[in-house]
Amino acid sequence: MKFKKIIYCCAIVSSLNLGAQTAEKKTSHVNPFIGTGAAHGSPLSGNNYPGATVPFGMVQLSPDTRNIPDWSVASGYNYNDTTIAGFSHTHLSGTGVAELFDVMLMPFSGSVVKEEAGQNAYQSKFSHDKEFAKPGYYSVELLDYQIKAELTATTHAGFHKYSFPKNKEAHIVIDLDHSMKKSDWNTRVIASQLSFPNDYTIEGYRIITGWAPMRKVYFHAEFSQPILHNHVADGGNVYENAKIVNGNAIRAILDFDTSKEQEILVKVGISATSIENARLNVQTEIPVWNFEAIVNTADAVWEKELSKIKIEGTEEQKQIFYTALYHTFIQPNTLSDVNGDYPSADFTVRNSSKSYYSTFSLWDTYRGAHPLYTLLQPERSADFVNSMLAYYKVFGYLPIWQLWGQENYCMIGNHAIPVIVDAVLKKIPGIDAETAFEALKNSSLREHPGSPFGIWEKYGYIPENLKSQSVSLTLEMAYDDWCVAELAKKLVKIDEYNQFAERSQFYKNLYDKKISFFRAKDDKGNWIGPFDPLKYGANGGYPFTEGNGWQYFWYVPQDVKGLINLVGGNNAFTKKLDTFFTLEDKPEEVNDNASGFIGQYAHGNEPSHHIAYLYNYAGEPWKTQKYTADILKKMYNTTSSGYSGNDDCGELSAWYIFSSIGFYPVNPANGVYVIGSPRLKEASIELKNGKIFKVTAKNVSDQNSYIQSAKLNGKSYTKTFVKHTDIEAGGTLEFVMGPKPNKNWGSKLEDRPIN
Amino acid sequence: MKFKKIIYCCAIVSSLNLGAQTAEKKTSHVNPFIGTGAAHGSPLSGNNYPGATVPFGMVQLSPDTRNIPDWSVASGYNYNDTTIAGFSHTHLSGTGVAELFDVMLMPFSGSVVKEEAGQNAYQSKFSHDKEFAKPGYYSVELLDYQIKAELTATTHAGFHKYSFPKNKEAHIVIDLDHSMKKSDWNTRVIASQLSFPNDYTIEGYRIITGWAPMRKVYFHAEFSQPILHNHVADGGNVYENAKIVNGNAIRAILDFDTSKEQEILVKVGISATSIENARLNVQTEIPVWNFEAIVNTADAVWEKELSKIKIEGTEEQKQIFYTALYHTFIQPNTLSDVNGDYPSADFTVRNSSKSYYSTFSLWDTYRGAHPLYTLLQPERSADFVNSMLAYYKVFGYLPIWQLWGQENYCMIGNHAIPVIVDAVLKKIPGIDAETAFEALKNSSLREHPGSPFGIWEKYGYIPENLKSQSVSLTLEMAYDDWCVAELAKKLVKIDEYNQFAERSQFYKNLYDKKISFFRAKDDKGNWIGPFDPLKYGANGGYPFTEGNGWQYFWYVPQDVKGLINLVGGNNAFTKKLDTFFTLEDKPEEVNDNASGFIGQYAHGNEPSHHIAYLYNYAGEPWKTQKYTADILKKMYNTTSSGYSGNDDCGELSAWYIFSSIGFYPVNPANGVYVIGSPRLKEASIELKNGKIFKVTAKNVSDQNSYIQSAKLNGKSYTKTFVKHTDIEAGGTLEFVMGPKPNKNWGSKLEDRPIN
Repeated sequence: MKFKKIIYCCAIVSSLNLGAQTAEKKTSHVNPFIGTGAAHGSPLSGNNYPGATVPFGMVQLSPDTRNIPDWSVASGYNYNDTTIAGFSHTHLSGTGVAELFDVMLMPFSGSVVKEEAGQNAYQSKFSHDKEFAKPGYYSVELLDYQIKAELTATTHAGFHKYSFPKNKEAHIVIDLDHSMKKSDWNTRVIASQLSFPNDYTIEGYRIITGWAPMRKVYFHAEFSQPILHNHVADGGNVYENAKIVNGNAIRAILDFDTSKEQEILVKVGISATSIENARLNVQTEIPVWNFEAIVNTADAVWEKELSKIKIEGTEEQKQIFYTALYHTFIQPNTLSDVNGDYPSADFTVRNSSKSYYSTFSLWDTYRGAHPLYTLLQPERSADFVNSMLAYYKVFGYLPIWQLWGQENYCMIGNHAIPVIVDAVLKKIPGIDAETAFEALKNSSLREHPGSPFGIWEKYGYIPENLKSQSVSLTLEMAYDDWCVAELAKKLVKIDEYNQFAERSQFYKNLYDKKISFFRAKDDKGNWIGPFDPLKYGANGGYPFTEGNGWQYFWYVPQDVKGLINLVGGNNAFTKKLDTFFTLEDKPEEVNDNASGFIGQYAHGNEPSHHIAYLYNYAGEPWKTQKYTADILKKMYNTTSSGYSGNDDCGELSAWYIFSSIGFYPVNPANGVYVIGSPRLKEASIELKNGKIFKVTAKNVSDQNSYIQSAKLNGKSYTKTFVKHTDIEAGGTLEFVMGPKPNKNWGSKLEDRPIN
Repeated sequence: MKFKKIIYCCAIVSSLNLGAQTAEKKTSHVNPFIGTGAAHGSPLSGNNYPGATVPFGMVQLSPDTRNIPDWSVASGYNYNDTTIAGFSHTHLSGTGVAELFDVMLMPFSGSVVKEEAGQNAYQSKFSHDKEFAKPGYYSVELLDYQIKAELTATTHAGFHKYSFPKNKEAHIVIDLDHSMKKSDWNTRVIASQLSFPNDYTIEGYRIITGWAPMRKVYFHAEFSQPILHNHVADGGNVYENAKIVNGNAIRAILDFDTSKEQEILVKVGISATSIENARLNVQTEIPVWNFEAIVNTADAVWEKELSKIKIEGTEEQKQIFYTALYHTFIQPNTLSDVNGDYPSADFTVRNSSKSYYSTFSLWDTYRGAHPLYTLLQPERSADFVNSMLAYYKVFGYLPIWQLWGQENYCMIGNHAIPVIVDAVLKKIPGIDAETAFEALKNSSLREHPGSPFGIWEKYGYIPENLKSQSVSLTLEMAYDDWCVAELAKKLVKIDEYNQFAERSQFYKNLYDKKISFFRAKDDKGNWIGPFDPLKYGANGGYPFTEGNGWQYFWYVPQDVKGLINLVGGNNAFTKKLDTFFTLEDKPEEVNDNASGFIGQYAHGNEPSHHIAYLYNYAGEPWKTQKYTADILKKMYNTTSSGYSGNDDCGELSAWYIFSSIGFYPVNPANGVYVIGSPRLKEASIELKNGKIFKVTAKNVSDQNSYIQSAKLNGKSYTKTFVKHTDIEAGGTLEFVMGPKPNKNWGSKLEDRPIN
């Protein structure tokens, strides 16, 4: 795929007259097909999509390869599929639940046939040979119809270019019923409308309940050629040449004549608030019928964003790296319109002078993606935080998994807290610390689904018989509480500091010294047995969440030293880590989310992500280097199965970006990045303040993954972490790499990461 | 009940210091218990409720006697029930579907017990001995708790007064999950919130899908005493002393101490747009803690509205009459807030300088209720019409059955059309005729659910094999088309006039001369057999809608002369009417809506309502007098089963009001009222223009129901109809009644109603 991609890319780029700098472009290294399909025989895809989007946009215009996508095709697209059902305007990147898929268009040629309700008679075969994607642009040939479909996007609008054969029977389907399986998440289209204000325009909306309780999706679409006729079906009701149809299963076919002009362009504005705003969105962002101009703009916007890190390395590394960066910058998604209107948590429309964002997959993204945004996207980070604070104001607590501005309570913890604390402590401008603290505090005191703070404070742990997923909850809640305490400290709120600092130590209450594992207790304080550290839980009914006792054992990022002490010191700790990374035993049932194994380490899901970095805390950084290098090499590639699990809104991508540069935020809110094994020859991070922080890795190669020595700004550097303040000051961190461990480097007590 | 009511009423009224004119008050004749229960052994209730509301208000604060009301208790209250589940703020009056029931409160005393999800542990027994209702006020003693609950209302707010025993354990339940059965109409609470901004206030909302696709109901409630503690359950999740809870099955218990102050007052503002507006609504309308003042205001508002017709008659007649007038003035309901915000058909919030109304049960109310509004409520009639036109603007066609601003497509036809045409032709100020015509035309040309205009124009009738309920549809669509044609004529739109005038004659295409009935054809033009004119259809799967061939035979209000000609002249026509009113045969299965029989005439449902008046058209007005007098006497009484079927948003009430005065709008859009048998000694209609139209019936009694002679403004009057223009001019219509028919009066050709 890589080769094919380059060929295509050059052809396109030259046709866009982008000039001589083509070879240097970061966008040229992005391969949007990475992560779009599972490896053969595995159900686990990155769940990425190849379609067109711009950074943090509302619109993701992408092909859906299933008429009814399920969780295994959560992005709508599976690289191993062979048909395309249509092109819908909204998609999630890397999630484990299939949602959105709003306003699907599908061009076809030939005669119109009668479709039964729920049927899709106009799917087309496609081939990867005749498919191309780059940031902000996707094209495919619909083989059944000899139609070339090209897609591009702006923040709030999709732009389609369909090249039909010379044909009097050219059609475009518009489907307002297309969604994930209606039986999943009680999905139902509650109401929808399609209207034809004039021969060149359609408008409408759908109100749909599903993974998000209630989404309103409005659109305004303009066609470059007149609609000659329309056939609308709403379930069993059929309308010919309708002016307006209200229903809840609307699917329409629009007729065109391409016997003279073969191209049909379609501009589609999307809004979560009104048709008027959808119209305003598209008319603002796509004022003229210049498809190539929008492709170029999208490319330029991506180029600007991706250029925030310039790297040297192999083409494979560049492709993985810039695709990962691209995947992290896809979301959180703009939810507000160009005029600032957005759907508030209380189902009213409010207005903000700044962009209002949603798609907060926080259990995933607080770990690596949000620290990356704080570094590379400080202005947007402020907007993300302020969006969450505005949400808090009407909802009463911060988001957990927020989709289209609404809570779906997916996963555990309240990991908006580390995101906000990290942003405040890193002094991101534009966030009011007192307002933020109020939100943190209330989100940590007001009980809500998944957050039983009453029993938390009463027992000092979550008793499994009162609340399932108790061990994972206890560990993750303790971390969030540490974050609250840190901001309390900063704001000199003594009482709150004491309260939350105490809560942050509750993790110890579930440590079973006898077996040296965190394990579940009941509300009488009895251990719940028997305990099998290999046994997996999913999302309820077991003390561990999408993981097992081995994987969750390491989740004390706020107090690794405390964890080391619990285990019995550095040796015991590193020995346990050694076992973790080598214990191949697997229980009969592995959770769907567990994949990408190195021993019990499972890179395909987030609970493992920080673990390889923990050796540094116990004085054996070369083992961190060994395993992070291993993961970087084994768990990422440039194919459609390039991720070892769901990319989870860019979280697996963020891990790669940090780790390939050479460090990772084990505690995502303490301003410290723990050094692993740099894999890139060079990486220059351009900071908002104009400074550059460069990381180099001399002699780095697949074999040379051990740090021999390091210098920060020319001075010898033996610390196994780097502070955010050092990065912000600009400078150079130089590593010398070699094939064998330098076990001295970074091993001393003073070199170990600060908790 | 009547006796009891008067006793109570006097006691209350004197306590309110309403002064010496008490005996004259119209409100004193209103008995809100009429129609609240079915006669023993019958499922058919008026489906009215006894609670507190003001004319055309958003809030109907009324007791719910079932925890989960179903269609047989559509108003929430059944007089034959013995327990009260709580007091919710929104109710429908007289419908056949149970909906609304938003924001239920229930006081209780004693200890709090653990309720399972969906349970209601705090229902209380009540007795009609300790219950009282009058317009704008309801009270009941909750026998299980020795609590007196009193309710009053403003347009947008409910006001509760709970008198507890001296008790440290006083509680009020607030239930945001209370609704009709969740399995009916796919009812589901999609999201809801309950918050406690301070000790005296709760706020929140629920988003619910059900009979209306998606209703948003926001509230703001203030308590006169502090909430000492709260217990909130959201299904299985339980919260103590919550600050804010989001969920979808929220039910909370609030604790109070009534050991010193026994009264707890609660003001609750409701809004369909936002919490802010709910707060504004209640703070505007109930600024102070004066319960009696709001009771007095509600009473005064009702008195003003009810005084638009002053009648003389027996106390029983007055009670039936003023209760009927009260029932007609309950809806359509205000949906906009005090600041003009309202939920538009496209699920956005828009603003109007005039009130925006909903609850349009048009298949019922276009017949009698809307003509009554045009007469007595011309300003509101303009607002009703303009609300429908605003709705049309975003929805594409006029409402059919509009609830909480949304279409539920209940019943057939497009009977907003006669309502609008009637208002325009009667020159109600403030309606733009051209805008109205555009809405009528598009609503009659744009196909939509239940309105297959394509096949209508293609076949000249609705073929049953293409669309069920075809005979009823054909007859009712022809009538709506006649209305469109009338406005086209008025606006000199020749083409449209011709088109719709032609369509208005399509009824003839389903007349089967051989059997002299309207019957179904297929799309080949074949009669569908066998035909049994006694057999009932309900709402699909049969050519007739909630009726049989006998009942629908008479539905040509736009062309009764045409119908007479079809049958073969006046004698054949009146003979057929005679058979209709005397044919006692009933099929095995009578539709639920068929009740109140006189032969095949079924006064309990609307298709029959105009039929008794049709004798006038064929020169036998004395038979109209006979049967209308019969219906007035037999089908209405002052008990809880005082209606012979569902009151249907005041339609059965409107029939009584018109008919007891002496006339009825057989064609509700032609400005003509057909004279029946006046039952009141005197009725004075106060018109908006300041004029009075008085109708007197000398010698009228149960026996004296035949018109002997009549005078209009002192001159002999033999016409069997009266024109709207005559009424508007003011004047007196005097009847002299007697025990035997004067078969001469009104029998001449020139005396017959103009079509």
